[in-house]
Amino acid sequence: MNRRMILYLICYILRIEGACLVPALVISLVKGETAAAFGIGLSILLCGFFSLSTYLYRVKTKEIGAREGFLTVALSWIAVSLFGALPFLFSGAIPNFIDCLFETISGFSTTGASILTEIEGMPMGLLYWRSFTHWLGGMGVLVFLLAVAPMGKGKNSLLHVMRAESPGPQVDKLVPRLQKSAMILYSIYIGLTLIQIVFLLAGGMPVFDSFCTAFGTAGTGGFGIKNDSMAGYSPYLQTVCTVFMALFGINFSVFYLLILRQFSQVLKNHELRLYLFVMLGSIALITINVLPTFQGHIGEALHHVAFTVSSIMTTTGFATVDFNLWPGFSKMLLVILMVFGACAGSTGGGIKAARVLLLFKSARRSVLRMLRPRSITQVHMDGQLVEEDTIQGAYSYLTVYILIAALSMLLISIDEFSLETNITAVMACLNNIGPGMDLVGPTGNYAAFSGFSKVVLSFDMLVGRLEIFPMLMLFVPQAWRRN
Amino acid sequence: MNRRMILYLICYILRIEGACLVPALVISLVKGETAAAFGIGLSILLCGFFSLSTYLYRVKTKEIGAREGFLTVALSWIAVSLFGALPFLFSGAIPNFIDCLFETISGFSTTGASILTEIEGMPMGLLYWRSFTHWLGGMGVLVFLLAVAPMGKGKNSLLHVMRAESPGPQVDKLVPRLQKSAMILYSIYIGLTLIQIVFLLAGGMPVFDSFCTAFGTAGTGGFGIKNDSMAGYSPYLQTVCTVFMALFGINFSVFYLLILRQFSQVLKNHELRLYLFVMLGSIALITINVLPTFQGHIGEALHHVAFTVSSIMTTTGFATVDFNLWPGFSKMLLVILMVFGACAGSTGGGIKAARVLLLFKSARRSVLRMLRPRSITQVHMDGQLVEEDTIQGAYSYLTVYILIAALSMLLISIDEFSLETNITAVMACLNNIGPGMDLVGPTGNYAAFSGFSKVVLSFDMLVGRLEIFPMLMLFVPQAWRRN
Repeated sequence: MNRRMILYLICYILRIEGACLVPALVISLVKGETAAAFGIGLSILLCGFFSLSTYLYRVKTKEIGAREGFLTVALSWIAVSLFGALPFLFSGAIPNFIDCLFETISGFSTTGASILTEIEGMPMGLLYWRSFTHWLGGMGVLVFLLAVAPMGKGKNSLLHVMRAESPGPQVDKLVPRLQKSAMILYSIYIGLTLIQIVFLLAGGMPVFDSFCTAFGTAGTGGFGIKNDSMAGYSPYLQTVCTVFMALFGINFSVFYLLILRQFSQVLKNHELRLYLFVMLGSIALITINVLPTFQGHIGEALHHVAFTVSSIMTTTGFATVDFNLWPGFSKMLLVILMVFGACAGSTGGGIKAARVLLLFKSARRSVLRMLRPRSITQVHMDGQLVEEDTIQGAYSYLTVYILIAALSMLLISIDEFSLETNITAVMACLNNIGPGMDLVGPTGNYAAFSGFSKVVLSFDMLVGRLEIFPMLMLFVPQAWRRN
Repeated sequence: MNRRMILYLICYILRIEGACLVPALVISLVKGETAAAFGIGLSILLCGFFSLSTYLYRVKTKEIGAREGFLTVALSWIAVSLFGALPFLFSGAIPNFIDCLFETISGFSTTGASILTEIEGMPMGLLYWRSFTHWLGGMGVLVFLLAVAPMGKGKNSLLHVMRAESPGPQVDKLVPRLQKSAMILYSIYIGLTLIQIVFLLAGGMPVFDSFCTAFGTAGTGGFGIKNDSMAGYSPYLQTVCTVFMALFGINFSVFYLLILRQFSQVLKNHELRLYLFVMLGSIALITINVLPTFQGHIGEALHHVAFTVSSIMTTTGFATVDFNLWPGFSKMLLVILMVFGACAGSTGGGIKAARVLLLFKSARRSVLRMLRPRSITQVHMDGQLVEEDTIQGAYSYLTVYILIAALSMLLISIDEFSLETNITAVMACLNNIGPGMDLVGPTGNYAAFSGFSKVVLSFDMLVGRLEIFPMLMLFVPQAWRRN
């Protein structure tokens, strides 16, 4: 077990986090937000101080295995969340540390669940940081490290880190070299974010709002900077978000294929087809269902339904209307979409279209084998054979997902809110969506939960973002054992 | 594909069903219930008439395979339900055929969900038949056939039928000969039922009530013959039911081992230990949680909580109190117990303790293999190696279970009841429990649902009782294909 390398990587991450806090400090200084500037500045100093500990010891070998990969990812995310929560605490903007942590984990995990009841009163520097955590967390803080840090050697061992952090049942290496893959991913990510900012600015959105909104969209996070989320913006700006939320829910390798002009490959992508089919089908069904709510204005209904479905299915969580007031069929379909989620290899959460497809194909195989026990059939995706280990992984993902969901629902139900609140709060956190139904609906928030429940839900957010296993490894004694 | 043998078996089942209706006819005649006697009599004639069609053709070979096994089971259950619904229709007791079918499928599938708002006004002959469907469905109508019918040859091929109908991830043959296994199972079933009747009679319960209550308990069904389910009976009678519900939720092979005096084998049974641990743990937690509701009377609280947990976990569905009014934590735990269910090889429904254990062990293996990719570990249960096909079966069970649950919730939500009603109604039907929460709570019923929703929920009840795959095969073209 290469503990030194784990610590080395965590310290490196903290140094990057400190650097990422600098723009927030600048904004607070320019806007004259003294308390916020003090809080952010102190946090930067602490990040820097702790990250210096790398110089206290020598990393003998950079080689790490699967175990260290999982632990590095889990511990890095916890460290980043702990330090990222400090600006809220030191500035006095959020007085309770558990609340600070909840808000920060919600940010990095791209959930967007908030304990803030009054968002517009927050200092701008902190609002910027809150939205930027979405952007950082969306693509993965360690993939970011891979893309920018001079790791040089040991690149194969870093595959374990990338594997543990990347969303989806399989990890696509875009190109043979891992670091180059990470750079391509981040280039697409930055590019799409910039294009969205341009579109938002073109619609007359203020610069600050444009950046924060784009961060929340790109990371499929959903922190708004307005109390009414996106309801106050113009239909044009809302439509820009509808489109970009849907785009950021697509597997990034699809964009890479588009850049390489391999259009036929894109069209053949099973996951993309399922994702678009479910999205458009849901929009159609819900629009018909909510039509009376919109007094029969089909254009308006379609506009808000498309926004909501795009927001929920990509697990972003922005809102233009209070869908908690929609009819039962629409609400039930939205809850199902919450669990379904976006595409693998995107910034979105949920079980993900690729995994649903894999589970479905594998179940289909089992059924056919029951009919003809001696037939040996294999599972294919996009024309390629899927390894049995990948299928086993998807199945155990589903099993542990259900166990964690059930346990979490039970634990937070101690707070005595409604069954609807408990079930959808866990679903919204575990799938990194943000708003649920009832008490945690689009007009509500998570402030009313007890500290204990907030810790449970924070754990769920990290579990959801890291796709269960890295967080689970923290509780497996075999993962910590020396060789 | 041996279609003639499938038809032959269905006709045989209908003949037995006709015979089972005779006691109900006698009761109605003795009590002077003219309309009911007419309805039951006409149904007996129709069963007899249709079953005579076996004499119209010759069954060339009794040999059947896995495909025919699934289809026989699915089609037999549908046929039995269609004919079993006739007495309610012909007697005019339930005017709508969909309602008749819902009530009958709820009976045979041992669910106990009812559309009746006024139970005590029903003719006694029909109440008897309604409860007796639980008893027949509990152990399996086809296992009954195996036990009593002179099938002689082709016994190995009937293993496919038994496999398709028996609950649990694996089928234990108690003894090498299948027919003898079926007879042992039914002997235990009859014996336990009789013992319960004796205990109920000893507590002063009327004879008719004792038989109907025992049928509902043995089949873990839960149809009551009173409007307030079991609330009106004495604490002694309620306690008898608590104990017998728990007993009927245990794998019957455990009772066989007890008869053989293999006590050490019983103690080592993993599933039994998990079942008892979850049951006792849940009783303790819920008792603490509901103590204020019972004004601190711990004895009374424990009594009603033990009854409710035993009823819900074994998927029976009897009620002594309105647990829909209990605090959120208790309600959430009850919903989780609904899904968990009883033991495999019992008359109870749900996912079942053995399958939960198998899924958990298999997920644990996957996690350990992530840490050490080259390790090859196997899954054991009760000291025996579990075949990979069994594990795959449990996984695909879980996948299809979730798909059907999600789709059903969506379909019944068209009726615009609450999210809590929709989720728990599907859970209560798919796991063969009966009462859910909110509208379908212990004091409510399923009468308010539309005909469409009742058909969906009826399908769910059959899917739950037959453990998904036989019903699923009806929709798989490959299952119907000629060789």
